[in-house]
Amino acid sequence: MYENLFYDKKVNALFSNEATVTYMLQFEAALAQAQAQYGLIPQDAADAITEICKIENIDMAKLIEDVRLGANVPIPLVKQLTTLNPKLKIQNFLEANKYVHFGATSQDVVDTALMLQVRDAVEIIVINVNIVINQLVFLIKEHQNTLMIGRSFMQQAKPITFGFKVATWLDGVLRAKKRLLYILEENFTVQLGGAVGHLSSMPKNGFEIAQALGDILKLNTPPLSWHTQRDRFVEIATTLGILTGTLSKIAKDVSLLMQTEIAEVFEPSGAGKGGSSTMPHKRNPVSCMAILANAQRVPPLVSTMLLSMTQDHERATGAWHAEWETLSDIVKLSAGTVKQAVEMTNGLEVNTEQMLKNIDCTEGLIFAENVSLALSSKIGKAAAHELVENACKTAVLNKKHLKSVLREDNIVTEHLSDKELKTCFKPENSIGLCNVFIDNVLKNV
Amino acid sequence: MYENLFYDKKVNALFSNEATVTYMLQFEAALAQAQAQYGLIPQDAADAITEICKIENIDMAKLIEDVRLGANVPIPLVKQLTTLNPKLKIQNFLEANKYVHFGATSQDVVDTALMLQVRDAVEIIVINVNIVINQLVFLIKEHQNTLMIGRSFMQQAKPITFGFKVATWLDGVLRAKKRLLYILEENFTVQLGGAVGHLSSMPKNGFEIAQALGDILKLNTPPLSWHTQRDRFVEIATTLGILTGTLSKIAKDVSLLMQTEIAEVFEPSGAGKGGSSTMPHKRNPVSCMAILANAQRVPPLVSTMLLSMTQDHERATGAWHAEWETLSDIVKLSAGTVKQAVEMTNGLEVNTEQMLKNIDCTEGLIFAENVSLALSSKIGKAAAHELVENACKTAVLNKKHLKSVLREDNIVTEHLSDKELKTCFKPENSIGLCNVFIDNVLKNV
Amino acid sequence: MYENLFYDKKVNALFSNEATVTYMLQFEAALAQAQAQYGLIPQDAADAITEICKIENIDMAKLIEDVRLGANVPIPLVKQLTTLNPKLKIQNFLEANKYVHFGATSQDVVDTALMLQVRDAVEIIVINVNIVINQLVFLIKEHQNTLMIGRSFMQQAKPITFGFKVATWLDGVLRAKKRLLYILEENFTVQLGGAVGHLSSMPKNGFEIAQALGDILKLNTPPLSWHTQRDRFVEIATTLGILTGTLSKIAKDVSLLMQTEIAEVFEPSGAGKGGSSTMPHKRNPVSCMAILANAQRVPPLVSTMLLSMTQDHERATGAWHAEWETLSDIVKLSAGTVKQAVEMTNGLEVNTEQMLKNIDCTEGLIFAENVSLALSSKIGKAAAHELVENACKTAVLNKKHLKSVLREDNIVTEHLSDKELKTCFKPENSIGLCNVFIDNVLKNV
Amino acid sequence: MYENLFYDKKVNALFSNEATVTYMLQFEAALAQAQAQYGLIPQDAADAITEICKIENIDMAKLIEDVRLGANVPIPLVKQLTTLNPKLKIQNFLEANKYVHFGATSQDVVDTALMLQVRDAVEIIVINVNIVINQLVFLIKEHQNTLMIGRSFMQQAKPITFGFKVATWLDGVLRAKKRLLYILEENFTVQLGGAVGHLSSMPKNGFEIAQALGDILKLNTPPLSWHTQRDRFVEIATTLGILTGTLSKIAKDVSLLMQTEIAEVFEPSGAGKGGSSTMPHKRNPVSCMAILANAQRVPPLVSTMLLSMTQDHERATGAWHAEWETLSDIVKLSAGTVKQAVEMTNGLEVNTEQMLKNIDCTEGLIFAENVSLALSSKIGKAAAHELVENACKTAVLNKKHLKSVLREDNIVTEHLSDKELKTCFKPENSIGLCNVFIDNVLKNV
Repeated sequence: MYENLFYDKKVNALFSNEATVTYMLQFEAALAQAQAQYGLIPQDAADAITEICKIENIDMAKLIEDVRLGANVPIPLVKQLTTLNPKLKIQNFLEANKYVHFGATSQDVVDTALMLQVRDAVEIIVINVNIVINQLVFLIKEHQNTLMIGRSFMQQAKPITFGFKVATWLDGVLRAKKRLLYILEENFTVQLGGAVGHLSSMPKNGFEIAQALGDILKLNTPPLSWHTQRDRFVEIATTLGILTGTLSKIAKDVSLLMQTEIAEVFEPSGAGKGGSSTMPHKRNPVSCMAILANAQRVPPLVSTMLLSMTQDHERATGAWHAEWETLSDIVKLSAGTVKQAVEMTNGLEVNTEQMLKNIDCTEGLIFAENVSLALSSKIGKAAAHELVENACKTAVLNKKHLKSVLREDNIVTEHLSDKELKTCFKPENSIGLCNVFIDNVLKNV
Repeated sequence: MYENLFYDKKVNALFSNEATVTYMLQFEAALAQAQAQYGLIPQDAADAITEICKIENIDMAKLIEDVRLGANVPIPLVKQLTTLNPKLKIQNFLEANKYVHFGATSQDVVDTALMLQVRDAVEIIVINVNIVINQLVFLIKEHQNTLMIGRSFMQQAKPITFGFKVATWLDGVLRAKKRLLYILEENFTVQLGGAVGHLSSMPKNGFEIAQALGDILKLNTPPLSWHTQRDRFVEIATTLGILTGTLSKIAKDVSLLMQTEIAEVFEPSGAGKGGSSTMPHKRNPVSCMAILANAQRVPPLVSTMLLSMTQDHERATGAWHAEWETLSDIVKLSAGTVKQAVEMTNGLEVNTEQMLKNIDCTEGLIFAENVSLALSSKIGKAAAHELVENACKTAVLNKKHLKSVLREDNIVTEHLSDKELKTCFKPENSIGLCNVFIDNVLKNV
Repeated sequence: MYENLFYDKKVNALFSNEATVTYMLQFEAALAQAQAQYGLIPQDAADAITEICKIENIDMAKLIEDVRLGANVPIPLVKQLTTLNPKLKIQNFLEANKYVHFGATSQDVVDTALMLQVRDAVEIIVINVNIVINQLVFLIKEHQNTLMIGRSFMQQAKPITFGFKVATWLDGVLRAKKRLLYILEENFTVQLGGAVGHLSSMPKNGFEIAQALGDILKLNTPPLSWHTQRDRFVEIATTLGILTGTLSKIAKDVSLLMQTEIAEVFEPSGAGKGGSSTMPHKRNPVSCMAILANAQRVPPLVSTMLLSMTQDHERATGAWHAEWETLSDIVKLSAGTVKQAVEMTNGLEVNTEQMLKNIDCTEGLIFAENVSLALSSKIGKAAAHELVENACKTAVLNKKHLKSVLREDNIVTEHLSDKELKTCFKPENSIGLCNVFIDNVLKNV
Repeated sequence: MYENLFYDKKVNALFSNEATVTYMLQFEAALAQAQAQYGLIPQDAADAITEICKIENIDMAKLIEDVRLGANVPIPLVKQLTTLNPKLKIQNFLEANKYVHFGATSQDVVDTALMLQVRDAVEIIVINVNIVINQLVFLIKEHQNTLMIGRSFMQQAKPITFGFKVATWLDGVLRAKKRLLYILEENFTVQLGGAVGHLSSMPKNGFEIAQALGDILKLNTPPLSWHTQRDRFVEIATTLGILTGTLSKIAKDVSLLMQTEIAEVFEPSGAGKGGSSTMPHKRNPVSCMAILANAQRVPPLVSTMLLSMTQDHERATGAWHAEWETLSDIVKLSAGTVKQAVEMTNGLEVNTEQMLKNIDCTEGLIFAENVSLALSSKIGKAAAHELVENACKTAVLNKKHLKSVLREDNIVTEHLSDKELKTCFKPENSIGLCNVFIDNVLKNV
């Protein structure tokens, strides 16, 4: 129902029932080929198996029905594969079918297939993260000098630039990307262990076959099977969790900046998106809502992955099963988050005028410290502080601009020229090292 | 893929896209009828709307595509409804279509539809919980006197009866059922508030219309709309979470009792279920694995529901959206858990012989305290304790049964007849108040 | 460190090491008295035990040191109790000490003590919830007619009253209180089962002793021991989780309303609270931050409680231990949340002037629908809608108030008098059934 | 209360109130020194500040009391520091105190102090992880040839060696260690940004001062301040979560192997640890329980950290505050987990005799596949499979050993010599590549 809202259709497609089984078939075919390379099974058999391992040969309805018997897909899948011959009339399959899934265990199939599936998804995610990065870089460059108020605890604090704000977003996204590239390099690993992990069915060169299998599937080969050591999957989950969290920070800011009363930044409006016919002023933060929702859903799913590490013996009773849909959901929701971030940051509307206006909404109070500092060297820190504090109170009480109140103060006019006073109230004088920091971040792109 | 493993097909069907939209259409039709009752819209219009609110009139593909525009289903759904006329040629629909969804807001539809959907699911769950209860009662009665060892920290402790063990399971399930009946009574509530909850579009008798709507849909009417007060949904989630946890305790015990070395209890074996052709001795705890997996997945989902209570203003930005699939998943996984519990407790195999054998596996050590007690009145507590402690050490060291060791001890033979000694080692003398407690629980059924 | 921020000092005190042990001693004394009532142990012994069960008799440092030996407190605690005699020289204690903890198991102590501890905490929580309720009622009555804007997705939607907003808060808090009262009635239950739950050490009248123990401690007596049926504790946790979530909704709203640019509502300012000397305009939402932080921490803790329901056999290996600090933390954080809610709602500052000003910040756009409705009966729905839509665009484009734009439109002036037009733009005409709903909620107090 | 059970005392000490404030004072002193290096403040002032920044100068009770005013520690801490002079009579402090905390913000202190604190804890954790690694290597070498049964879904599957089992444990721990070293290198980072992150108070060389501060505190310097980009802390949390999960897998196995009926492996027994005086046969898995409890508590805490990444603007309203105790708890519980793992793996008792005995508990059924394979080449796969399947059924039915049943089968005796048959039933012939995999893992140490 929400394929278009919380998810990325392309990634969702990788997790359809058919796609999932296709990855499993890919494992079975590659296993046969790897075993043939080492003479464990005849090459003819391997080729016949490869031929047979196609999704169109599988009766999906029956497969799904049979999942409950052994609590996994490979058991009924292998059964279908080894009994396909009559229907398919592949000549040498009668001979070949005893080599299907030879010496492997169901978990070898499930884990390896999931690795392939998630790897393909993460590659799509990285492509989209790169788009987000490019769009953020564009925004930084366009708004390097766009002044806006910085806020702490949702209270106006001091002026910053919008370019700086986006640079802090980008900083996080760059690290999230680095982590994604790291897991792409390290974590995607083949599973091949047989019944209890020690490949007793391939006692001669089981490890070499595992390596060959890894090569065919472009997965790493582990030092030993990891049926109940699940950290690789879990780290994929935490990495995607951090990515989602990082993007949710952007969505949080955008949604707050889109508030009617603040109105500084808006999601790009597409045809019909986020609008309301009966409330013409509304600009609903559609992408923000999707991202914020996902960012609330992914972390508890990550905790399920961590919890599932407590696995018993050589194959886990339930903890393994808890991973399957959980990891898929994490991947799918993270992919959807990135997809929405791509949409949100593509042509984000920035109302620079409103940003300036909002800087002024405290009527100068946010600049009080500047005046205090300017006066300090003239009349001493304590006196300066007290003078400004009183001026602030007067300004609030009389609803006047702080600058006006100060202008009417003799001590101020004595020590600060009108130009000097004005300088204190110019936001562009209060943006600190925004540009230094922007440069630091852009260097890391 | 795992519809048959982690889920209950019947409940899953309630959450298909078509079913979900059907519930929404049910809301729109009922709203129109309620409004007609109070003259807010013409009865003709209400009837035309009712006529039109059928799933076959909806272009599902387009609907799903359009969900991303407004971040919810009702916006495009109402659009489809109000433009259906040409296609359907319902005479009075041109007039009627301005009354579709009159004065309601998207959240009214989404929340009410979800209430209806979840209510139907909970009703199925209750039916299955009742089956579990009946099956547990049957087991209790059958095994009221079946002796087995009780275990603390997975160490053998003292004998109990299997009937007593099942009674502790039943005790939890009875309370879980009570909670389900409570929420069926209290929590299923209509949502009708309009844009900001105050029904400004039905200023005359909005509350009465809400009551009429509640009556038609057999839902409670709330004192006021609850767009951002989500406790009712959350309590449904926590109640199902507790149910799942309660059932997982049974699955935990069964899976431990099914261990090859313990072999006291087995899931009923169906055709092909849980077996292994290459490992004939294996009896995989299929239902246990499904239940244990679900019990690891539901609690973090419940935490998402609790987290989503932090909602902003009159309609929440993301927190609301985080609920939809989360609550559905909780309901579906809980339903699947109960379904598997029905299967597991239906004809659970109990190996009473093995239970007796396991009681003896410490060679009498678990009865040491009985002997100590029996001797206390004769030779004093301290002396008795020391004597028995030493006898235990000897038994372990020489791999002899404790009874044999004690029989060779002069002090023991002096004070305890052989019959008295034997009595100490009879498990049926150590089952305490098992039957009292069983009765207490059965009274609550 | 954060005793004063995230917590309630009074409740925290109930969970100090000394307080915890005191509750355990209370159990041991009450157990002895209950057993004496039924003649299981001599009354003298019971009195001596009661005498001895005082926190000042316990060597806390040694106790904490010894917790690691048996993975719980009662084992070393009972050891200390039974060896206290020489030090205390209570005459009949040598005789009594064999009756200390008679027939009980460590978990009986831990669970019952936790029940007592949490019950005392929940009673404090209820007192504070009542204060919150009273303060919310006060706010509702004071601001029944205070106009403000309602917001959906953080966008201005339609006017409401502040009284109505507070009524929605109160509605949730009332249900949260109802749940607290329910668990006070139902869930606080004595634990007495002995080694494996069947009280084999009190075979004659163990259940009656359990009832007497419950009576002494003012706890319910369960049908049977619940060593591995943890739903009662879990439901306490979920109930507190819902309470915290309910209060966090208030904090969310207040924190958003305190934004510098919105400035409608403020936490009461105490001496030095929430202020900033260098940024005089800042009003940091201190209580909101504490509540929002707690509301992010409690839900995952609740998931730990739910997860811990999967307990093995007659005493759980780890799952039980996971509960102890988790439940305490939930209680303490929930108590802190209520405490901060008391502070926050006590004299909440409401800037009614700013509320009115903010209603106008879209320059009339939020009233567009009213005009559209008013024109509908004159010129037809479609024409009215189109006219107003265009007027809105003109208003935005030319930065004019919608009313002014409409006044310059001939069709409008032809059909609506100036008074009629003005009426459309009066917020007090758009508050729907706010007062009806307020009344509904107040009836439930 | 549970300092000795769930925690590591040494690490807990790093998180005492005094220790926490000490880290904060360390920040303030280092900041002053860094600022003096760049001439921002006088060296004299920096030295005076360094002099004053000692825990003994702080009124802890008052500090804790005042935390609620500003919702953090640094505000009242800096206040205490700047008013210490009269009491301390440090000559130049009157001059210096205006440079205390110069240009920094509270979050700079809190974040940096937490980085230092957690870094010290992680270093202790790594030391203990290394001890665990060494102890596991020792166990592997000692038990490279110790035969035991491998189990899937808690059912006996095929023989493995205990050395192989420990190698799978070690494999996980090695990767967990690698991740710890990685975060020690990458994640511990100084925070210095001032009010809104752009160091407007040090506009000349703020970034250089941040670098100098990083150098003094041996922390990395970030490209820009990360007040609302929390991924570094979160990754520390996820890394510790994975570590805890990895160790919990060992505890899960050990606790299962310690079951009375299995009795293959035992936690080392210390004086009084895990024993029971009334139940002499019990060996409670104390360390396992602590580890398993922690492994159930840490993951939900990690989810809180991930959730807290959704931070608003330049300083977060609640999400930041939610991190403090949560991260501390994760660190403390993880440290306790490693501590218990050190204890558990130091002298783990292995009952090799019982392991052999358990291999035989199915009376040969686990070797059925071996016989089937051996017969296949003689009589064909199908016939072999059928024969063995029937023999298994006979064995179970008549409670005989499979080998005996087969010996009485003419076809078997015709094709397999008694020696060949015996070979099929030798576990040492079924351990596959255990030694290859052990070598692979040991290479990574």
